[in-house]
Amino acid sequence: MTEIRATNITWHEGHVGREDRENLLNQKGATVWFTGLSGCGKSTIAFTVEHALVERGHLAYVLDGDNIRHGLNKNLGFSAVDREENIRRIGEVARLFADAGAVTLTSFISPYRKDREQARKIHDEAGLPFIEVFVEVPIEVCEQRDPKGLYKKARAALAAGKGMGFTGVDDPYEPPLKPEMVIRNDQVTPQEAAATVLKYLEARGVLPALE
Amino acid sequence: MTEIRATNITWHEGHVGREDRENLLNQKGATVWFTGLSGCGKSTIAFTVEHALVERGHLAYVLDGDNIRHGLNKNLGFSAVDREENIRRIGEVARLFADAGAVTLTSFISPYRKDREQARKIHDEAGLPFIEVFVEVPIEVCEQRDPKGLYKKARAALAAGKGMGFTGVDDPYEPPLKPEMVIRNDQVTPQEAAATVLKYLEARGVLPALE
Repeated sequence: MTEIRATNITWHEGHVGREDRENLLNQKGATVWFTGLSGCGKSTIAFTVEHALVERGHLAYVLDGDNIRHGLNKNLGFSAVDREENIRRIGEVARLFADAGAVTLTSFISPYRKDREQARKIHDEAGLPFIEVFVEVPIEVCEQRDPKGLYKKARAALAAGKGMGFTGVDDPYEPPLKPEMVIRNDQVTPQEAAATVLKYLEARGVLPALE
Repeated sequence: MTEIRATNITWHEGHVGREDRENLLNQKGATVWFTGLSGCGKSTIAFTVEHALVERGHLAYVLDGDNIRHGLNKNLGFSAVDREENIRRIGEVARLFADAGAVTLTSFISPYRKDREQARKIHDEAGLPFIEVFVEVPIEVCEQRDPKGLYKKARAALAAGKGMGFTGVDDPYEPPLKPEMVIRNDQVTPQEAAATVLKYLEARGVLPALE
């Protein structure tokens, strides 16, 4: 790198590398990909992890339905093609965030194995950790919770002969075959779940170890 | 916010706000949107600004053709509809990055006023600074530089009666009407241009003032 002095600032030629941002942030860029049925508690865990990370001085950011479906992916519906494109774009944005040095937490049902594998592939190719966290809760429990009334709506639609392709009701959920973590979220609190994720991030070297 | 203790970590309920990340990073999230003809030097300035920011301990990230066209937007071509969608997605991703607290630098020709205005609008709505920087260089100078041989190719295509819709040759460039900054990049060095951007970011409160 060549050093150039202009005005009162020291300038360096050449691009900033990922490592420079990671050193600055004292962490590695990485994507933690939460997957699981509607109502399994993905978002609660993701936001709990985000909070704990920022509390510890780390940059974390959650990509979820709220900031993606109303923005980047607002021109996508729920057809098979659109669902695939939805997850593809999320994978690409997560990769950009991870490349910027952020611990990126994605919270989407992401029911299809091949779509998740594609997101993993582009992270692998970029040398970025992709940590798939399967939030496993029996569908009966998710349906019992039904925080947004979506299962009820899906069952009613199905009974009326107008299936809406709702994951777990009339569309499949393909569980990960080799996820980095499985969280039985009907057996632990969100805090316990988040603590497990943090420990994993330390063990993986994404975060420096907490004394 | 309720405080919960679990294991050895202090947990807080409620989401992390933008302000929490901004305090952590000691900066405000913002988007600096470089626009101008091919060969005007947008990317050189953007990467010079990025370097200076990281050097000063700030998180900055460049979105450009290299990381966008080969990833998020690899399924878009160069039709009018695809060009609009290209810039729309970039605007949305920039907004997410700015919301995460990063100083986000976008480097795209982005020739159409209405597409840039749309990117500005979604930042305005989110209360995020959107700083449009018009990198103004006479087309003759850009065409003389022609670092990637694109003007030559576009002129040849046009002469052969097969226009490729290249900005400045056979597709219009609509200069910003009220850009936050104009850089006459044939009259300053990239370092001088970048220094001007940094000063603006300080004045705007995106960066703390440099002593």
